[in-house]
Amino acid sequence: MHQLHISAAPARVSSSWLGRYQAVRAQSQALCAPLLPEDTVVQPTLDVSPPKWHLAHTTWFWETFLLKEYAPGYQLFHPEYAYLFNSYYNSLGSRVNRADRGTLSRPALADVLAYRAHADAAMVVLLSQGEELPATFYELLELGLQHEQQHQELLVTDIKYILSTSPLAPEYLPASTLLMEAEAAPASATWLPVPGGIYRVGFQEKGFCFDNELGVHEVLVAPFEIQNRLVTNADYLAFMEAGGYRDFRYWMGEGWDLAQTQGWEAPLYWVQRNGEWYRFTHHGLRPVVLSAPVTHVSFYEADAYANWAGARLLTEAEWETAARHFGATSRAGTWLESACFDPQPLPTEANPAQCHQLLGDCWEWTYSAYHAYPGYRRAAGALGEYNGKFMVNQLVLRGGSCATPKNHIRISYRNFFHADKRWQFTGIRLAKSVNS
Amino acid sequence: MHQLHISAAPARVSSSWLGRYQAVRAQSQALCAPLLPEDTVVQPTLDVSPPKWHLAHTTWFWETFLLKEYAPGYQLFHPEYAYLFNSYYNSLGSRVNRADRGTLSRPALADVLAYRAHADAAMVVLLSQGEELPATFYELLELGLQHEQQHQELLVTDIKYILSTSPLAPEYLPASTLLMEAEAAPASATWLPVPGGIYRVGFQEKGFCFDNELGVHEVLVAPFEIQNRLVTNADYLAFMEAGGYRDFRYWMGEGWDLAQTQGWEAPLYWVQRNGEWYRFTHHGLRPVVLSAPVTHVSFYEADAYANWAGARLLTEAEWETAARHFGATSRAGTWLESACFDPQPLPTEANPAQCHQLLGDCWEWTYSAYHAYPGYRRAAGALGEYNGKFMVNQLVLRGGSCATPKNHIRISYRNFFHADKRWQFTGIRLAKSVNS
Amino acid sequence: MHQLHISAAPARVSSSWLGRYQAVRAQSQALCAPLLPEDTVVQPTLDVSPPKWHLAHTTWFWETFLLKEYAPGYQLFHPEYAYLFNSYYNSLGSRVNRADRGTLSRPALADVLAYRAHADAAMVVLLSQGEELPATFYELLELGLQHEQQHQELLVTDIKYILSTSPLAPEYLPASTLLMEAEAAPASATWLPVPGGIYRVGFQEKGFCFDNELGVHEVLVAPFEIQNRLVTNADYLAFMEAGGYRDFRYWMGEGWDLAQTQGWEAPLYWVQRNGEWYRFTHHGLRPVVLSAPVTHVSFYEADAYANWAGARLLTEAEWETAARHFGATSRAGTWLESACFDPQPLPTEANPAQCHQLLGDCWEWTYSAYHAYPGYRRAAGALGEYNGKFMVNQLVLRGGSCATPKNHIRISYRNFFHADKRWQFTGIRLAKSVNS
Amino acid sequence: MHQLHISAAPARVSSSWLGRYQAVRAQSQALCAPLLPEDTVVQPTLDVSPPKWHLAHTTWFWETFLLKEYAPGYQLFHPEYAYLFNSYYNSLGSRVNRADRGTLSRPALADVLAYRAHADAAMVVLLSQGEELPATFYELLELGLQHEQQHQELLVTDIKYILSTSPLAPEYLPASTLLMEAEAAPASATWLPVPGGIYRVGFQEKGFCFDNELGVHEVLVAPFEIQNRLVTNADYLAFMEAGGYRDFRYWMGEGWDLAQTQGWEAPLYWVQRNGEWYRFTHHGLRPVVLSAPVTHVSFYEADAYANWAGARLLTEAEWETAARHFGATSRAGTWLESACFDPQPLPTEANPAQCHQLLGDCWEWTYSAYHAYPGYRRAAGALGEYNGKFMVNQLVLRGGSCATPKNHIRISYRNFFHADKRWQFTGIRLAKSVNS
Repeated sequence: MHQLHISAAPARVSSSWLGRYQAVRAQSQALCAPLLPEDTVVQPTLDVSPPKWHLAHTTWFWETFLLKEYAPGYQLFHPEYAYLFNSYYNSLGSRVNRADRGTLSRPALADVLAYRAHADAAMVVLLSQGEELPATFYELLELGLQHEQQHQELLVTDIKYILSTSPLAPEYLPASTLLMEAEAAPASATWLPVPGGIYRVGFQEKGFCFDNELGVHEVLVAPFEIQNRLVTNADYLAFMEAGGYRDFRYWMGEGWDLAQTQGWEAPLYWVQRNGEWYRFTHHGLRPVVLSAPVTHVSFYEADAYANWAGARLLTEAEWETAARHFGATSRAGTWLESACFDPQPLPTEANPAQCHQLLGDCWEWTYSAYHAYPGYRRAAGALGEYNGKFMVNQLVLRGGSCATPKNHIRISYRNFFHADKRWQFTGIRLAKSVNS
Repeated sequence: MHQLHISAAPARVSSSWLGRYQAVRAQSQALCAPLLPEDTVVQPTLDVSPPKWHLAHTTWFWETFLLKEYAPGYQLFHPEYAYLFNSYYNSLGSRVNRADRGTLSRPALADVLAYRAHADAAMVVLLSQGEELPATFYELLELGLQHEQQHQELLVTDIKYILSTSPLAPEYLPASTLLMEAEAAPASATWLPVPGGIYRVGFQEKGFCFDNELGVHEVLVAPFEIQNRLVTNADYLAFMEAGGYRDFRYWMGEGWDLAQTQGWEAPLYWVQRNGEWYRFTHHGLRPVVLSAPVTHVSFYEADAYANWAGARLLTEAEWETAARHFGATSRAGTWLESACFDPQPLPTEANPAQCHQLLGDCWEWTYSAYHAYPGYRRAAGALGEYNGKFMVNQLVLRGGSCATPKNHIRISYRNFFHADKRWQFTGIRLAKSVNS
Repeated sequence: MHQLHISAAPARVSSSWLGRYQAVRAQSQALCAPLLPEDTVVQPTLDVSPPKWHLAHTTWFWETFLLKEYAPGYQLFHPEYAYLFNSYYNSLGSRVNRADRGTLSRPALADVLAYRAHADAAMVVLLSQGEELPATFYELLELGLQHEQQHQELLVTDIKYILSTSPLAPEYLPASTLLMEAEAAPASATWLPVPGGIYRVGFQEKGFCFDNELGVHEVLVAPFEIQNRLVTNADYLAFMEAGGYRDFRYWMGEGWDLAQTQGWEAPLYWVQRNGEWYRFTHHGLRPVVLSAPVTHVSFYEADAYANWAGARLLTEAEWETAARHFGATSRAGTWLESACFDPQPLPTEANPAQCHQLLGDCWEWTYSAYHAYPGYRRAAGALGEYNGKFMVNQLVLRGGSCATPKNHIRISYRNFFHADKRWQFTGIRLAKSVNS
Repeated sequence: MHQLHISAAPARVSSSWLGRYQAVRAQSQALCAPLLPEDTVVQPTLDVSPPKWHLAHTTWFWETFLLKEYAPGYQLFHPEYAYLFNSYYNSLGSRVNRADRGTLSRPALADVLAYRAHADAAMVVLLSQGEELPATFYELLELGLQHEQQHQELLVTDIKYILSTSPLAPEYLPASTLLMEAEAAPASATWLPVPGGIYRVGFQEKGFCFDNELGVHEVLVAPFEIQNRLVTNADYLAFMEAGGYRDFRYWMGEGWDLAQTQGWEAPLYWVQRNGEWYRFTHHGLRPVVLSAPVTHVSFYEADAYANWAGARLLTEAEWETAARHFGATSRAGTWLESACFDPQPLPTEANPAQCHQLLGDCWEWTYSAYHAYPGYRRAAGALGEYNGKFMVNQLVLRGGSCATPKNHIRISYRNFFHADKRWQFTGIRLAKSVNS
């Protein structure tokens, strides 16, 4: 389990663990508070899971990996829940088919909340006792917290998708919580140089990282230029209006075929009403804000846009190099905690010599396959299935989004999705090679 | 609309219409009372609709066919509901794809109940006023009541399917409401003769019938014998134990292929635990009662059973002839109102010279295609789509079931399903030809 | 095997058996003579089988049911051919998946012809010897001949489909073999009365019939009127031009959905070029002949046409009654032997008081499900799978077509296809009920 | 079109162009000579194209890109052939759906051969004339030759698949042409070090390359070890016997799910008979030769094998670096020209300090996604679709195989397939990281 890479600082029994545990657990439930029980059940598409499934699955994680092992005399809440709420761990036996998650009305939301309370009570006892537990316990504890934060992001995006399918365009949050609305000219884009050289990539800081960030290694990066902000809705509309969705020359073949089959003409959630573009948001159907970053685009669309714009996407190594070069931090940026669930425009007055929006707002599609770093080895046991078995056929995304908990992100963080996925807060960052 | 065939007696504004309306509407909601909001949303298979969809669709029927036409100044509850809750009427425009009914969490159950209250209030005003309304209004009123009763039966069967998908085997009703449980020897089966001759089939009584029962016509029926009770679970187990599910010789080809693909080994809802057969019921998982009629079998299974038993199913004309011959009434039999939702055993002391269980308990698969009766014509307008467009590729079932409202059935009532359907309370009645 | 119902006249070893055998076998090969080897391999849709499969499967039938049983010392041509060329007999073990028939290039056509020669040589020895064989042998011999004739019709229709898929519109036969082309006014349609009464249906003649025609029984037929000729292309074009393919009110629901999904706008094989309708034929792409019977329509189209025309299709019993009433014979009509493979116009001078085209030209869709006749029982052994297991979910067609061998038809002959099938020479006959 | 990168040496009208053209064209036809017409039609799986399609498509390439442009007065052979034989060029209009290639019996093989002769005659005239043609012509000429060689490899692999589907296991070539058969101990595997450093990858030689090899760039390669030969059947059997196909821990998740769904238990073409492993080859069903390289494995199997073996696959950059380091040449290795169509064992006496089989025998799966090299730009016009639109979701394979023309390969050559593909001659090379 050493790949889970907990900080070298000794992990003590401290009130901070208990506090963090309770804060993270409360956050998951707070995200579901605006929902009706009906909203927590459905699965309108395979990628989406019902919110009550997320609430239960994260609890199953605590039960399976910590409580069963470390809480003496812990009683499983229900013997069938392991079958119901195992996500994909072959090591842990058979499970509900992913496609059937939205067919199960029971256990009901109230049952799932009782399940959470049951596990939380036992976790609180464990975290409140005086004794030091084995180091592995704290590693698993950290992993459980990070895992639950990952599902918080999925809760945000899955809730959006679920509510979007109704023609009633229900509001998850009242429109008053919306940050942007008044339209401003987007901050103009500039190109910033990043010098070439040999750089180290991978997790080089203290604290937690996932095993897929380990294996720090050197890469040779050629000099390149990066755009100082994310591509905006105004930029993307220019592509749309120039016929970008009707010209195969900009597209990967599989993306083009999919766009034809699915009838893609705009990002996910966009609809046209009386000649104006609107988009479904957590605040209902709202006008497209031109200065805000475009989001809910697939890799295929991001890549086609970049081709049309005479530029390209960054590689994963370039992104990480640039983020380190420009000292990207999570202090700026829009995160889950803002509860606006929408990437925000870069203020017009933003320094054009700085590289903005690298962390937060939108995950940035890179043109790098999600493969193992050098020396990667899967952990023994069920947690070896956490990351490693997904390391083919997907692309890396970097930087976090407006649905990511702020303290969950790192410069070395590697997210990954298939090229066709659009329901995450995915956006576009442009780069250019430099002929040295 | 004359095909809807209301009784010749003049339909007056009478308290009885109001009372019936309120009773039927209350019944639909009473059936959903034991459910959680979560249960009302899901659609675990294409045949099943979410309970809140049933509650809303029946309301849409009142709104569309009566309130919009006859209630002056009636305000639609919501402009999108016609799109959301139209079932299959092409005449009435586009609608939610049937397969997507279970993906919509909104409108929520509470919204649907408010929708019902809104329409009910307007209906009550309409039915309470002193003035006589046009005759067509009363025809539509009768049709609306019958339509809502049809959906009550679907509510019962769809709720059963929905709850069955959870490994938790939840109880819709407490087991104490279960009628049978103590096992008795099944009443023995006897063969009763029905004389041949020319018989009239179709609706010949007073009152309401559907347009598919009109067109009374003569048929020539050869003499035959009918079994005096439904096939029991004990009978069916003998077929299973004799290898009936593994011997293609008894099966229609399409049924055999389906049974192999789906892995059928028993009726729907049957599971084996420690060598004993159980079945999922509205009262949770209960032992199979040997003396009770077998139910939840497809036509393919009914037909294979009959072949194995050296007998056959009845034709539709034979069934109706026998029902008239034996004076079948709905006084006996198990109906929706018993709220046990399970076909009941025939008492051992039942008269072996009588033909039992013709009405109620289980719909009986006939070996007759659901085709139009002579002279059938679809009504003009949207209601022409009510029955006529389904008159191919399905089989007729007769007699009603334990999920049918008692006053909804008639001897001439023609129900119809595809040969593979198993989620209704379908059963088996045997016949034999007589060599005259 | 008595269901195969051979004539009461004693079947002797006679040169006529040998002659018939050789003629039928030669006919099958003659039908393939205009093909290239490439044409004999492909399966462009599931309903169609490759011609070399037909040539081999019919041979397998002889080998399996006659040679293995009755030819002493017969050597199987190849041990794998039983696996390759069994069509659907579960009794006879596993077989190539139907959908994969067109993926097998081997055995090649030459191998299949050698297979035929091998079996034929043994059959000729058997049929040329002096000794009488058991009666069952002659029953099987007759069945084998009828079976091969059924596959001759399929060869004609499958070859048409295969050649139609190429944009090159290849000609199976030179256009000079086409009978009709010069356009004449279609013979006008008249309505002929058929008196009601109790009629006997089923096979009542001497000679061979299939087991599905046995069980002669009485039916009560109400008086009706029948149209004296098949519906013509001119008639059908009027339906098309009146928007028949765009108005759901004429259609069965499943037919309407299919027509939308498949984009049906005309019968199979019709294409429009410069505003004119053409159709693909065995003679390449030819103009639609207005006076000829419309063909290659599904039941759904036939039924929608009849609804639009204010008429209806016949039931199976009505058709047989009318055919007997009007003394239909196979002397008139277009058959396989004409080698034109196209239903022919009724001459303008045809007697309007006669009912024409009942036998030959086009199979007539009836509005009767293909169900067992009273007393039907499947034969023991593999041949019990010949007809019985298909007796649900299909509709009866009557009368034979321009692809049927002339001596293969009978008034009692029951053909059957699913409601959506269009690749056979299927046509439309109208009827009307008479209010007595 | 400069990306097609023809040698700097002036391309003259020379007999060598004509000779090469004729040799390449003859080679394609020679590969089809052992086939029957039936074999040239079918498409048993989507990845495979019918041989006559390959023969025609390559001809279409010459017609479309050279003859129409440069041959004055050239007459298209047939106006429909552009529709029939365009593979995937959106620039060049609509085309036969890929899945339907195997449904078209026409044009027949003879027509396709006439098509080839027609185009060849015009090409010979063009190449025989005295005048110099524009440089672009020679670039296209070179590309056409390379393109046709690519289809020669596909002809070899598609023919194998086509013949394999028949249970008759037909021989494409007589077994006497088989090179290996006598079993020897496999050469033992050794690990050879490759020093780390900054290396240049991409096309750096003279002559032709594809545009995907351009953009020579530097990569930083960490020191690693490479196995001196391909993984053998004996090696792979050890994995199989150790339960490699039943242990998800070695597998990528998508590969594991696919293997379960498809029932993979061995490489493609392997079958077990009486406890012995055989494999289908161009010479019929032959015993597995333990010392020969394993082939017809997917990336998923290659990766799982490497995980099981405690090693890993090479990256693309490592492979190219190693190939340059060890001076790999195409002098050794098994190629198309050997006409054995089977990777050959490494002789036991092979120098264990050398790295063998890098070129020829089997394409080696790398763990590198097929992405654009830096600076890659798609060519204008239809040829821009040649490579660029495939640059996502696939993996790079290196080194050529026993089905590759010997003069078609280069160290910088980038082949690419999806991770699940098995019908090419794909094999496994192991590497290990070195902790420096």
